[in-house]
Amino acid sequence: MRHLISVIVENKPGVLARVASLFSRRGFNIESLTVGVTEDPTLSRMTIVSNGDDSTLEQIVKQLHKLIDTIKVIDLPKEASVKRELVLIKVESSSKTRAEIVQIADVFRSKIVDVGENTLTIEITGEEGKIEAFINLMKKFGIKELVRTGKVALHRGEKTVM
Amino acid sequence: MRHLISVIVENKPGVLARVASLFSRRGFNIESLTVGVTEDPTLSRMTIVSNGDDSTLEQIVKQLHKLIDTIKVIDLPKEASVKRELVLIKVESSSKTRAEIVQIADVFRSKIVDVGENTLTIEITGEEGKIEAFINLMKKFGIKELVRTGKVALHRGEKTVM
Repeated sequence: MRHLISVIVENKPGVLARVASLFSRRGFNIESLTVGVTEDPTLSRMTIVSNGDDSTLEQIVKQLHKLIDTIKVIDLPKEASVKRELVLIKVESSSKTRAEIVQIADVFRSKIVDVGENTLTIEITGEEGKIEAFINLMKKFGIKELVRTGKVALHRGEKTVM
Repeated sequence: MRHLISVIVENKPGVLARVASLFSRRGFNIESLTVGVTEDPTLSRMTIVSNGDDSTLEQIVKQLHKLIDTIKVIDLPKEASVKRELVLIKVESSSKTRAEIVQIADVFRSKIVDVGENTLTIEITGEEGKIEAFINLMKKFGIKELVRTGKVALHRGEKTVM
């Protein structure tokens, strides 16, 4: 099963390496990972998406709790969380296809953020389904490259991790 | 100096841990890191923001090149890159402050993605300056929590990493 884990850690060198090696030692692939500072600059927040059996993941969560720099670990509830991702996509475009690409980008409320002679770079945010649909539509034009942030998530409503 | 590094790697367990430990062994803090799959699902793309002296970073880039699972490493040119980040912010809101928060969110072209009885959750994307300005404006209402994806970036124009 796929899990979405939030980890609050001290903002120090070495913490990310320790967290990442906990996953790799058990052969758990990390589908996406993001880490950035929080509203308190001494703390960072990681969001990790990982796929695997529940019992191994439970062990990883326990080990994460034990790491000295970990403040909090939460396995976020999928339905009760707001999940978002940002993707930058560079697509081939010609005078013939540009209008169609711009039209599709509009429908998805995405933004054209750069224009080259034969390319358009588009910023899109949303949940996974929307992003996959957009990437699939762009394939016929030719995707030159893309970069995804990986998912970030917060509990819905009032609830917080801390 | 602050560097923005793109690393294309094999999408395998253990790669992230090896990359992260290269930085931590030299005491280099990672300000933000994102990793997600590319248009080719066998490859992942990392975007790393790190601060430190240029000569140490040069050594890290060389070491990154030598890692067996690394396909490509690029120190992205700051001015010639499109850089974006996504942030989810949960802010305290009451019947008195809600209208003002929504108005500021509109000005920043951010989106309200969830509403609690006493909270609003907002999605904002952009370059660093815009995001910092928005976070600062939200402080007076009370930030309950926030999560940032960290930066992703692509070359401007036609140029690609591969």
